[in-house]
Amino acid sequence: MEIKLTRLEEPFLFNVENSNGAVLLSNANQDIGGSGKGFRPMELVLAGAGGCAAIDLLLILKKQRQNASDVQVLVTGKRDDSPAKAFNAISFHFSIQGEVDENKLGRAISLALEKYCSVVQSLDKNIIIESTYKIN
Amino acid sequence: MEIKLTRLEEPFLFNVENSNGAVLLSNANQDIGGSGKGFRPMELVLAGAGGCAAIDLLLILKKQRQNASDVQVLVTGKRDDSPAKAFNAISFHFSIQGEVDENKLGRAISLALEKYCSVVQSLDKNIIIESTYKIN
Repeated sequence: MEIKLTRLEEPFLFNVENSNGAVLLSNANQDIGGSGKGFRPMELVLAGAGGCAAIDLLLILKKQRQNASDVQVLVTGKRDDSPAKAFNAISFHFSIQGEVDENKLGRAISLALEKYCSVVQSLDKNIIIESTYKIN
Repeated sequence: MEIKLTRLEEPFLFNVENSNGAVLLSNANQDIGGSGKGFRPMELVLAGAGGCAAIDLLLILKKQRQNASDVQVLVTGKRDDSPAKAFNAISFHFSIQGEVDENKLGRAISLALEKYCSVVQSLDKNIIIESTYKIN
């Protein structure tokens, strides 16, 4: 798995490309001179965590024969006071549409976040992972 | 810092939006039924790691009064055999243009990856982080 970054504009706007040719824009925070276009690097981590959690959740619900017709995820990150301002907590709020048993959903979210989500399992084990959900 | 994911297409194509309204597409691997459009979640982590490393490297080189006129980064991730297929190694290859002292560049890359890069410092400490560089 490979990602290529090339600078589009000074000082910090980058074109980011994957091996299929998909592109996105990434930039620094305006506090340090970025223009605010595109995604900040730490936002991309939250984006990856949310996508991965959503995909795994849908797969687990399907295995549980739960009929989730749609899902939205809101991912929020809190950062610490280290020089890197690393994440110290990430919370996921899942909104689920469909005929879904609440107990099974709770179990599916735990399995997704604690076992199957590649991104969450690649994060520092000290980061607090929290989740809430709503069935519509 | 907040990221919102909404499903665009079944089963796994998500619209990902940050608080400034920037959007990107994320999808599952084709192996599990994704269409291959957009970025896979784990690619977004590499994208974030590369952007953050590049930005911090440029900031450190500037403080060192090194004249880097451009930078590209290639980020490669290797995954383990756990159920989550988490990262076990991430390598960065930096291509730097400009008048840059090689010793200072090596030191700047170490500082960026080991101290300042928010994304790398948010990753599991067991992930092996490697780097190479080329000055053009």
